[in-house]
Amino acid sequence: MAARPAPGGRADYRIFREHSTRWMDNDAYGHLNNVVHYALFDATVNGWLIEAGLIGPARARIGLVAETGCRYHSEMAYPDRIAAGLRVAHLGTSSVRYELGLFRNEAELASAEGFFVHVYVDRATRRPAPLPPDLRAALETLR
Amino acid sequence: MAARPAPGGRADYRIFREHSTRWMDNDAYGHLNNVVHYALFDATVNGWLIEAGLIGPARARIGLVAETGCRYHSEMAYPDRIAAGLRVAHLGTSSVRYELGLFRNEAELASAEGFFVHVYVDRATRRPAPLPPDLRAALETLR
Amino acid sequence: MAARPAPGGRADYRIFREHSTRWMDNDAYGHLNNVVHYALFDATVNGWLIEAGLIGPARARIGLVAETGCRYHSEMAYPDRIAAGLRVAHLGTSSVRYELGLFRNEAELASAEGFFVHVYVDRATRRPAPLPPDLRAALETLR
Amino acid sequence: MAARPAPGGRADYRIFREHSTRWMDNDAYGHLNNVVHYALFDATVNGWLIEAGLIGPARARIGLVAETGCRYHSEMAYPDRIAAGLRVAHLGTSSVRYELGLFRNEAELASAEGFFVHVYVDRATRRPAPLPPDLRAALETLR
Repeated sequence: MAARPAPGGRADYRIFREHSTRWMDNDAYGHLNNVVHYALFDATVNGWLIEAGLIGPARARIGLVAETGCRYHSEMAYPDRIAAGLRVAHLGTSSVRYELGLFRNEAELASAEGFFVHVYVDRATRRPAPLPPDLRAALETLR
Repeated sequence: MAARPAPGGRADYRIFREHSTRWMDNDAYGHLNNVVHYALFDATVNGWLIEAGLIGPARARIGLVAETGCRYHSEMAYPDRIAAGLRVAHLGTSSVRYELGLFRNEAELASAEGFFVHVYVDRATRRPAPLPPDLRAALETLR
Repeated sequence: MAARPAPGGRADYRIFREHSTRWMDNDAYGHLNNVVHYALFDATVNGWLIEAGLIGPARARIGLVAETGCRYHSEMAYPDRIAAGLRVAHLGTSSVRYELGLFRNEAELASAEGFFVHVYVDRATRRPAPLPPDLRAALETLR
Repeated sequence: MAARPAPGGRADYRIFREHSTRWMDNDAYGHLNNVVHYALFDATVNGWLIEAGLIGPARARIGLVAETGCRYHSEMAYPDRIAAGLRVAHLGTSSVRYELGLFRNEAELASAEGFFVHVYVDRATRRPAPLPPDLRAALETLR
């Protein structure tokens, strides 16, 4: 493998959301299973969209998850509390790439970092559609 | 505590559904976390309803989960395969009590047994409504 | 079904722990799946035990989950935050029955209530063993 | 975004493992939540390692998850059954990259494809260590 990128810090992210962990998040090794990280990414992105009023049944265009990924730098475990940092790394015509960092308790360096790509489609036709203007404007604030 | 009931056997259940387990189902003790049992109950009951055409957006009455419970007799662990047995223990005017047993691989005795109560309501008003006749007829076959 | 007990209030519980919810906790009905409640019970009980230093590899007796249950009073959904109340309802020679209530955001009445029974066993023999004295003393404070 | 790669087919993978889905795997959109795909990747890789006797407490070197990723081609939903295909794409001195495809029921094209990188470390020191020879030999069969 090529040299691994160093973990990012809190200053690399624009907003944060706090998540609690659950006993069952720990796997047989006693640490957060690699899958749980994605549940926190998913909750962070959708939480921000909900708070901003940018997701819901009244909207004509919806975001489908096209690609996700995560690099694991160090262990986390229940009962850690996790701060998830969020930023927007790329805005395309019909897609957005969110990048996320997971910070264990008071840690300054991320325990894991990943990304989450949404492609927007028309709700009815499911064909790609431009990002709605209000969404694009809000996403610009996360750059 | 009072004396615990002995585990039931496969003959105590009417139909069975097979479930695979997942590595992350194992918790820090290396066995199936107590929560996972309910995910298998939930999948078994809803799976039977889906196969029987008794659940879906076209139906005017929907079942809400009112109560669930589980007694744990013995351990199960990934990569066990689990057979879930299902029977109907009680049919009320607007409710049904399913009982379930989870059998590890080829075991004849249940590793866990529990129940799952649905109360039927009108989709629009969310007030209790009689069990639909086609559902009641199908549930009778699980007694 | 017999008349259902009314939901308990916050004053019915002795301590509280805060939990965040996750987007994937919502099921196809857009509300917290019935299984998730048990993940919160499990995290609440084990979290209290960890904070009190009453669980861990150095301890000769371990608690196995013998029985759990939940009654669902009303819906919760991501992104609700959930306060889990905990009390001890019964202390036997080798077992403890925890009772829990889940409170949605600022609600005073529980959305769901349930219980969680641990039976203590010797770690090596897995045979029932009396509750360790330090655990019993701590559990008395949750009555 | 650049053009997306076309979905792979079953012939692109060396071995397959069957997974059941669960009602709670469906999220508020009524399809498999993006997180669930990783639970199936994780179960597939660890299942193969367990069957091959290449994981367990007696082994001096353990694999830590360093990176994972997934591209989502099309929807899957409970009660689909999912065949997970597995192949080895890269063998380094101390790391292995697995690639996986998830196939819905009888579909020939993957609904999602991803990867899973394990880095092997000494269990005691947690420093990178060469892949054990028996593991390397087994991994060669998945190329």
